Amino acid sequence: MLVSGGLDSATLLALARAGGVECHAISFDYGQRHRCELTAAQRVAAKGGAASHKVVSIDLSSIGGSALTDASIPVPVSASQGIPVTYVPARNTVFLAIALGWAEVLEATQIHIGVNAVDYSGYPDCRPAYIAAFETLANLATKAGVEGTAIKIEAPLIEWTKAEIIRRGTQLGVDYGLTVSCYNPRPDAAACGRCDACRIRAEGFRQAGVPDPTHYIRVPSAAQ
Amino acid sequence: MLVSGGLDSATLLALARAGGVECHAISFDYGQRHRCELTAAQRVAAKGGAASHKVVSIDLSSIGGSALTDASIPVPVSASQGIPVTYVPARNTVFLAIALGWAEVLEATQIHIGVNAVDYSGYPDCRPAYIAAFETLANLATKAGVEGTAIKIEAPLIEWTKAEIIRRGTQLGVDYGLTVSCYNPRPDAAACGRCDACRIRAEGFRQAGVPDPTHYIRVPSAAQ
Repeated sequence: MLVSGGLDSATLLALARAGGVECHAISFDYGQRHRCELTAAQRVAAKGGAASHKVVSIDLSSIGGSALTDASIPVPVSASQGIPVTYVPARNTVFLAIALGWAEVLEATQIHIGVNAVDYSGYPDCRPAYIAAFETLANLATKAGVEGTAIKIEAPLIEWTKAEIIRRGTQLGVDYGLTVSCYNPRPDAAACGRCDACRIRAEGFRQAGVPDPTHYIRVPSAAQ
Repeated sequence: MLVSGGLDSATLLALARAGGVECHAISFDYGQRHRCELTAAQRVAAKGGAASHKVVSIDLSSIGGSALTDASIPVPVSASQGIPVTYVPARNTVFLAIALGWAEVLEATQIHIGVNAVDYSGYPDCRPAYIAAFETLANLATKAGVEGTAIKIEAPLIEWTKAEIIRRGTQLGVDYGLTVSCYNPRPDAAACGRCDACRIRAEGFRQAGVPDPTHYIRVPSAAQ
């Protein structure tokens, strides 16, 4: 299970645990600005009942091309049109590929990823067709696939809105105070309140009618 | 272009350069035993006329599951049946995914990979169906794909034998003395002469009728 430390993956973990699935969490130290999400991922995995948690280092900043990994590209403070500059080239493909390798070692038959509807309005690698194509690839790429053990990519949140995710997670007892969404947090992990991630998060809590536990430096304006 | 420092990728680079393609080489420091292949990759990229060369670090040894990344699993010294223990789970998927990210940043429209027929007898991620599935994925995964610029995965060596690769590369002036194939080289980069990679390499030169420039510690026995 890909666990980023954000609210989607915290909900994903709670859903799978509620279904009785043994979960092994994986996070990535990829040169992101918001490395405090790794501390959040650790808390989320531990409190959420993951059987193990692994952090894999990969230097995506050497490739650049994103405001999240290239310090010279600022994180936008107003809503983006089209594919935003916070898009990290091929990030989900890289993460799913590494997760696939670990799944082979663990002999796991499912890979869970918390992509969802709000994300895929902007990021190409959050769409259902993308997830289906990765599943096809996974079964051709691996020993398990060749030997007949199918690998499923589970993306249960893909059609959900942020508000639906937050409502379901709240029912399942997720503590969203452990999670971090901000792309550009302060060193003490306080959220900027201005980036797309903060705006989408704040709006999700508002629409869900659930109190937002986030410590924002500045109150986010409504998401588009 | 994925450049490992082995003879396949040296030939791949020569082929593309002969076709007038501008090549940007990428190699991976992934916790492999045979890290001397990175020095070889640098030489191959420079002498082969690559426009640039990038080495991306990724800690696949934290996942383990292969004799190439886990020091506790010995490299076999006799020919393997089925998928060998030197198979690194999902390695080509991880490498192609990172290359895809860099291709997006470079606005490149092709990714070249030197997988070939001898490899795919043992490794699932060297088969034509796998390459085709990755190409489908790549076009769903990326900004370029969404915006209509198709990305092609070029694997021109996929149906070639080692002997054919060596013959073609020799015609194109490839210096195979720069390349390293051994999975378990000595610290001075001398080849063990016992692993699958050494055996397949030596047999390839023999069948091609081309002198083998490799310094083997021990003369490889015939490949299976």
